[in-house]
Amino acid sequence: MEKGLFITLEGCEGSGKTTAAKTVSRKLTEDGFDVLYTREPGGIDIAEQIRRVILDINNTAMDERTEALLFAASRRQHLVEKVIPALEQGKIVICDRFIDSSLAYQGYARGIGMDNVMKINEFAIDKHMPDLTVYFAIDPEDGLKRLTGRDEINRLDVEKVNFHKKVQEGYEKLLEMFPERIRTIDASKDRQTVAEDCYRLIRNWLRERDV
Amino acid sequence: MEKGLFITLEGCEGSGKTTAAKTVSRKLTEDGFDVLYTREPGGIDIAEQIRRVILDINNTAMDERTEALLFAASRRQHLVEKVIPALEQGKIVICDRFIDSSLAYQGYARGIGMDNVMKINEFAIDKHMPDLTVYFAIDPEDGLKRLTGRDEINRLDVEKVNFHKKVQEGYEKLLEMFPERIRTIDASKDRQTVAEDCYRLIRNWLRERDV
Repeated sequence: MEKGLFITLEGCEGSGKTTAAKTVSRKLTEDGFDVLYTREPGGIDIAEQIRRVILDINNTAMDERTEALLFAASRRQHLVEKVIPALEQGKIVICDRFIDSSLAYQGYARGIGMDNVMKINEFAIDKHMPDLTVYFAIDPEDGLKRLTGRDEINRLDVEKVNFHKKVQEGYEKLLEMFPERIRTIDASKDRQTVAEDCYRLIRNWLRERDV
Repeated sequence: MEKGLFITLEGCEGSGKTTAAKTVSRKLTEDGFDVLYTREPGGIDIAEQIRRVILDINNTAMDERTEALLFAASRRQHLVEKVIPALEQGKIVICDRFIDSSLAYQGYARGIGMDNVMKINEFAIDKHMPDLTVYFAIDPEDGLKRLTGRDEINRLDVEKVNFHKKVQEGYEKLLEMFPERIRTIDASKDRQTVAEDCYRLIRNWLRERDV
């Protein structure tokens, strides 16, 4: 019943995903496609309520598995209320982060296990895997420099860099697991070039499918 | 590291579980055991927050899978903050409803599939399956009569009875799947007799284990 296409963007923080998502959405719209840009919880009330429980600064006792289940619940509701209806209307849905973020961050970097996190996300997604995923590859240290706007990283940043290195390793495992679905772009270039590259990659992918 | 024992009580509404849970807890305490009686979300703040999202009357758009993930998240947090610490202290934990309720209600009666609901609950529970589960077997129509306090059921009750018949079928499948863990008592007798039977069953089970 779904005539649309579901495209997700993935990568570490500072990789230029969000800038690219907006550029790509604008350009595809100019090309005449019907596009929905979104990211969880995406204004979906129940998903927002769940996100508030995840982010509440007082919830310091939050277990990692509870958190992973809440992310999956929020994902499910956003998918059902926003993504699936748009796909049924034939739209191209551009979603900034989706299942791979949970697999790389919670599954791999936080150590819950990618297989374990996959199980609950398969339940949440129920066959609605992305048709295409663009992975923004960047050295985690460079990503952090971009985020902080500083040229050098300090001692406190090192911990963050080490965590982001784990996230990157997680994404690299996903590239091996899903070579058909996930395509990589070099996100070390300046943001606007990265955004253009992402647009070109998606445009070519659409052409391959005669869309 | 856990020296305690984890006992869950399961069954349809009106089966006398809650009365029995309280009687059993009191009597085991009198026998000198260190007992914790609980039921989700059990006063655990994060679990209560999640439960409020599930129960919010305005959340009519809640998807069944979102709900199942939220129940699993609430279960995880209650388990981590309340059940596991009590087990580590060597307590007997009596929990009114646990994983089997999700399997029978969401998995079977609501049609999500027991295998699917099992996956997310295995993630939530992570090896902390109950040591013993007591199933309160009652004809769903009798259970409903008890709940309403009426001798006859009306047209509107029929839908509820049909749902509870599905729940009962779900529990019966679980009895086949987990014959070692789940023991059945006849819950058609009066509440106090059922409570006494439940106590006796647990007491004998403890003796079998030389506790």
